[in-house]
Amino acid sequence: MGTLAEDLTARTRAFVAEHVLPLDDEHDGDIEAAGGDERRVALQEAARAAGVFAPQVAREYGGHGLGMVDRSGPLEEAGYSLFGPIATNVGAPDEGNMHMLEAIASADQRTRFLEPLARGLVRSAFAMTEPAPGAGADPSALRTRAVRGDGGWVISGEKRFITGADGAGFFIVMARTGGEAGGAGGATMFLVPADTPGVVVGRHLPTVDRAMIGGHCEMRFEDVVVGDDAVLGEVDLGFRYAQVRLGPARMTHVMRWTGAARRAHETAVAYVAGRQAFGGRISDLGLAQQHIADNEIDLAATRALLRVACEELDAGGRASESTSIAKTFAAEALDRVVDRSQQLCGGLGVTADLPVAKIAREIRPFRIYDGPSEVHRWSIAKRAVKRITNGAPS
Amino acid sequence: MGTLAEDLTARTRAFVAEHVLPLDDEHDGDIEAAGGDERRVALQEAARAAGVFAPQVAREYGGHGLGMVDRSGPLEEAGYSLFGPIATNVGAPDEGNMHMLEAIASADQRTRFLEPLARGLVRSAFAMTEPAPGAGADPSALRTRAVRGDGGWVISGEKRFITGADGAGFFIVMARTGGEAGGAGGATMFLVPADTPGVVVGRHLPTVDRAMIGGHCEMRFEDVVVGDDAVLGEVDLGFRYAQVRLGPARMTHVMRWTGAARRAHETAVAYVAGRQAFGGRISDLGLAQQHIADNEIDLAATRALLRVACEELDAGGRASESTSIAKTFAAEALDRVVDRSQQLCGGLGVTADLPVAKIAREIRPFRIYDGPSEVHRWSIAKRAVKRITNGAPS
Amino acid sequence: MGTLAEDLTARTRAFVAEHVLPLDDEHDGDIEAAGGDERRVALQEAARAAGVFAPQVAREYGGHGLGMVDRSGPLEEAGYSLFGPIATNVGAPDEGNMHMLEAIASADQRTRFLEPLARGLVRSAFAMTEPAPGAGADPSALRTRAVRGDGGWVISGEKRFITGADGAGFFIVMARTGGEAGGAGGATMFLVPADTPGVVVGRHLPTVDRAMIGGHCEMRFEDVVVGDDAVLGEVDLGFRYAQVRLGPARMTHVMRWTGAARRAHETAVAYVAGRQAFGGRISDLGLAQQHIADNEIDLAATRALLRVACEELDAGGRASESTSIAKTFAAEALDRVVDRSQQLCGGLGVTADLPVAKIAREIRPFRIYDGPSEVHRWSIAKRAVKRITNGAPS
Amino acid sequence: MGTLAEDLTARTRAFVAEHVLPLDDEHDGDIEAAGGDERRVALQEAARAAGVFAPQVAREYGGHGLGMVDRSGPLEEAGYSLFGPIATNVGAPDEGNMHMLEAIASADQRTRFLEPLARGLVRSAFAMTEPAPGAGADPSALRTRAVRGDGGWVISGEKRFITGADGAGFFIVMARTGGEAGGAGGATMFLVPADTPGVVVGRHLPTVDRAMIGGHCEMRFEDVVVGDDAVLGEVDLGFRYAQVRLGPARMTHVMRWTGAARRAHETAVAYVAGRQAFGGRISDLGLAQQHIADNEIDLAATRALLRVACEELDAGGRASESTSIAKTFAAEALDRVVDRSQQLCGGLGVTADLPVAKIAREIRPFRIYDGPSEVHRWSIAKRAVKRITNGAPS
Repeated sequence: MGTLAEDLTARTRAFVAEHVLPLDDEHDGDIEAAGGDERRVALQEAARAAGVFAPQVAREYGGHGLGMVDRSGPLEEAGYSLFGPIATNVGAPDEGNMHMLEAIASADQRTRFLEPLARGLVRSAFAMTEPAPGAGADPSALRTRAVRGDGGWVISGEKRFITGADGAGFFIVMARTGGEAGGAGGATMFLVPADTPGVVVGRHLPTVDRAMIGGHCEMRFEDVVVGDDAVLGEVDLGFRYAQVRLGPARMTHVMRWTGAARRAHETAVAYVAGRQAFGGRISDLGLAQQHIADNEIDLAATRALLRVACEELDAGGRASESTSIAKTFAAEALDRVVDRSQQLCGGLGVTADLPVAKIAREIRPFRIYDGPSEVHRWSIAKRAVKRITNGAPS
Repeated sequence: MGTLAEDLTARTRAFVAEHVLPLDDEHDGDIEAAGGDERRVALQEAARAAGVFAPQVAREYGGHGLGMVDRSGPLEEAGYSLFGPIATNVGAPDEGNMHMLEAIASADQRTRFLEPLARGLVRSAFAMTEPAPGAGADPSALRTRAVRGDGGWVISGEKRFITGADGAGFFIVMARTGGEAGGAGGATMFLVPADTPGVVVGRHLPTVDRAMIGGHCEMRFEDVVVGDDAVLGEVDLGFRYAQVRLGPARMTHVMRWTGAARRAHETAVAYVAGRQAFGGRISDLGLAQQHIADNEIDLAATRALLRVACEELDAGGRASESTSIAKTFAAEALDRVVDRSQQLCGGLGVTADLPVAKIAREIRPFRIYDGPSEVHRWSIAKRAVKRITNGAPS
Repeated sequence: MGTLAEDLTARTRAFVAEHVLPLDDEHDGDIEAAGGDERRVALQEAARAAGVFAPQVAREYGGHGLGMVDRSGPLEEAGYSLFGPIATNVGAPDEGNMHMLEAIASADQRTRFLEPLARGLVRSAFAMTEPAPGAGADPSALRTRAVRGDGGWVISGEKRFITGADGAGFFIVMARTGGEAGGAGGATMFLVPADTPGVVVGRHLPTVDRAMIGGHCEMRFEDVVVGDDAVLGEVDLGFRYAQVRLGPARMTHVMRWTGAARRAHETAVAYVAGRQAFGGRISDLGLAQQHIADNEIDLAATRALLRVACEELDAGGRASESTSIAKTFAAEALDRVVDRSQQLCGGLGVTADLPVAKIAREIRPFRIYDGPSEVHRWSIAKRAVKRITNGAPS
Repeated sequence: MGTLAEDLTARTRAFVAEHVLPLDDEHDGDIEAAGGDERRVALQEAARAAGVFAPQVAREYGGHGLGMVDRSGPLEEAGYSLFGPIATNVGAPDEGNMHMLEAIASADQRTRFLEPLARGLVRSAFAMTEPAPGAGADPSALRTRAVRGDGGWVISGEKRFITGADGAGFFIVMARTGGEAGGAGGATMFLVPADTPGVVVGRHLPTVDRAMIGGHCEMRFEDVVVGDDAVLGEVDLGFRYAQVRLGPARMTHVMRWTGAARRAHETAVAYVAGRQAFGGRISDLGLAQQHIADNEIDLAATRALLRVACEELDAGGRASESTSIAKTFAAEALDRVVDRSQQLCGGLGVTADLPVAKIAREIRPFRIYDGPSEVHRWSIAKRAVKRITNGAPS
């Protein structure tokens, strides 16, 4: 008998292999083609039955209560299939939203928003990003505004790239309640049910990835009226709360994508171990060995950086630096793993006959989503200069 | 007035911008969605009207007769759109087939096969690759056989990844006429009309690329009977002829993909020059400048290696080494160019709202098609060891 | 008050800054120029006085008894100066030899060999590597032989690249006692005092590094006679014991070189933060920020991999895989850190006016010593293929 | 019989192998240890006798008159030995100075300065770089001043990193005659004999490279008085002339370092072809093949970019962009070639027992000298943004 985390890891692995991977492969990782929310509900029932549902959620809401380090195993196993995170309710953006709600929401908000989300009764979305020149890689450019009126707030503005928006039950909306676009202060988060008048979900952006339920959508908030009880936490602290969400959400991304990249790697290794060329097993050829070894190294380094950051989070730290470093490294390293796996599979590596090509398609945006690598590097460098010129060891 | 090559380059650029790019973007680079062969015929008519059709084909067959160096410009401009090579009849595999037929076919075969192909009346396919354990990265594993019978040959075997097979008017089929699978000798090329009994075009492989007309197909040759006049060149010299086709075909691939990568780069530069973040134009940020500069360097090095190899081919050399090096470098460098362009475009770099993501999807397989980089490196290394241990400078 | 490990880390940092770095810089990292063993003795006295001597050695031999994870901090701080490991008696090869003697030596051998080594009274060397075609990257090629005679053994053979040989008080000699060159079995370790007749220390190899006391030497064992009490552990188990030494020794290498690379990085950041070019601080230029961020990422990933491997070692595992991965990654990552630091320092990065160039010179061989990266990749790949084809997750 | 260029290439190869390499290896590439200027004179006599002296100099001054493309071969062959460029009088900075003097100097200046330099009677130096915050990567920061007085000029200022200064017969001194530090205009070049009062050659910077005769020195110009006839070209056009020197000088650097990197590569290939490990020739192991192939690709791409730039220079262009790209690529690619060669040679790759380590030491600064790669990338990116946003193809 292992720990709860080990046990959930092993059971998630088995569950995914039996219930999720076949569907994923049948539909080439396209969740809409696989049935969208109807499929989600069915998969989540199966996950509950298998005892692998919501490993990261508090027990009072039906989960297993695993901390950051402990959830790494189950989330990696969920990510082994593109549909796995949906099935066990550990996918983006819901997982990050649950995390933030557990940390910040009022008792009433927990009942109305967190609990149904945690139990898989609804999905949610996090409405922060805006079309240029609004909030993007630079969140302080936020332009959506919320104006205080009689007994509530009026929210208006445009959003873009809102993951999971189509079909979400509610939105966590970031809006400017003070300051000017370009300023660091004065943002507030609001909890807005999807059926509130003026909430408009528009076009799905035609992204290369297809496994994200509810798409990445354009949205408009057209004079949306909400009460004071819609404010998440306190007024004007939105950017600070975004940081609360940010670090852990980055890390669960890394966990899930580690699983996906591992599947690509294992697929490729099995492929080359079973094929002959130039008089031997391909897996014995040095140029294949280089790819295999580099994949192993990249996976190991990703997991090691992930664990350091998760321990810091579990200890109550904000872990801005360690999660930024881990996210940046992982996004690039896991992409390399999948790319090398495609090379190892030769022609089949760029077809849907093996699962490697679809993983490549889905993982590519991770170097851009949640902060492009370039923006992370910029902030990593600025912190380093400050720290080192103050005499602290790097 | 420039040279003919310069003139064709400029006119192809204008033609592509006006007649081809709008269609390409409208259909996200999917040639079947854009109308398939019907569209091809219309585009080729427009190209003839614009005087940019078949720059590489001999004048007697309606082309402009440009050599390898001279065709680089027009083919790069054609490749600027994913549909451009189809429009000007410089696409794979037809372009390579024309090249080989010009070099090897008999007068009668030229009339029956080369001329209609050069004029765009039919398409063709080159049927060499087979499912494992047959001919793949290692062509000598060839298993399709042609057996000499009364007054002709009987061809039987399976092929896979036959580009352009669906809708092709004829096939150039590589079949073993001597020796054993794994041996270097005893292959023959046959010219086989598509309507010959026993020629079966099967499933399109579900590849990530969608701009290749006629797909990448599975095929079977079920006791296909052809006459002696179907033999291209001489019996048992098929592997040698494949080499004749190989070098130039690699280089025209590089020309076309250079155009596509250049479009991604130019799109990204225009994008970052028009956007602000962190208080300035993105294009003035150092981390963007690094990507832009690296793109410029990779494009310049690709073109420089291409020219060296093309001069060697124009001078009558086989250029096995220089084309192998240029192909390997180009496939990786151009992929990097497109990847950096995606990063520069941020979220839009992974959507169909900009043309960068589709170029990424189309160019990825070039590191695998026409010899994976790993196999090229293996042969480059073997040649280098032999040459240097013989005392020749590297 | 921190833990003992934290305390030793802080005190080692202060000790190195005050007592070691000035000497290191004065002599450009050349330990012979700085006085060789005489200097070593003086530095070790100072380290003892500062309470930072031998953090990794058992308390009974005068050390602080830190395990692998805990010694990481003090050893990184020692490595911050090229002479630091000598000063605190944590340098190669002595540190690894102590580790192995603690694990394997008899009580008598501990008294005669381990204790004086741990207390800094003598130095030691590990005589395994041989000139081609003997033991090198492939240890099984071992050719030095030990033949059982009356009451003892006669050792004969040639060694090369024996670090610290010149001036060592004793040698741990690997010799074949069974099997054939190329076979995995039949090697035995012998403890041989330097003054034993027939022990010949020859030429120092003219290596690029100069901070390793006692050089990297050629050696001969000319019919060297030793008794049965010279056998370390059991006869014929030498290759197994080499594995015992290998993993921890790799990791302490990584600790020390992390310190050296960190010094290069901090030097470079301080340099660019204090210089102007093109109208601003160099440290604010994006192309400098890229180097700084990549250095931070490489340092963080190195430390994270190191910790994972050290925990496995502290838990009693052999950690062959995790130490191999950590060593391979670290050797390359730390070399990149130093190389980028040189670029950041411009012209001064290739002079002795800053400490960066000498660190570059010293760290370069780490990608070759203790197993070239290529050999590590080969074994990492072989293990991965075996594991994955057996169905275990990678 | 080949062309003159081919002939000089072959003869330079033979000359270097016979007369230069043995000395280079005997003295580990340290020209001072090999005898400095005395050795230079002897080597140049031998080069003249072999008919390989000054291939790039006009015939009227005793050279062979080869243009940029044509001199590539002889200069690569000279660079094959670290002392070769000195022997055939094609080394930096003299070669670049000759080039500029041929283009700009008056008839009288040619007689006094160019002719003795071309014939090897004196050496020269180019005094532009200054200590921070003066002219460095950013030449416009120039602070050395020349003030017009009665019948002449008074030059005063500090210089640093002046290659070849110690022992030079004259200096080409860049001094500000107008504008302010940081401005692009107002610099003038002066020809200053070394024995002019106030010319002070100071400390040799302790650089890692040792093959550059006359060192890299600190200098002071203490109220140095020169006449109007010391002005090279016209007053205030110094920055423009520096550009004239820059492009060709970058390219001849690339030629010479290509030779050095080729030697490292050939040494490594010969080494691995002659050694066994793990049951076969090392050169047949895939991880070695990867290095060998990558070296071939990097060498080929370097030469290809070099040729494109040299053709542009031969056609009379300034080639700022193509020489910047070629220099940046080459400095990094050739460094990679040498680094991989070191890996291939294992332990011997970091000793003086093979010539690879010394080549690594000498070539490293090339990524910094003549414009660090980072500064080149910055200007390449700026040009690209300008060109592409103006609608020109990239």
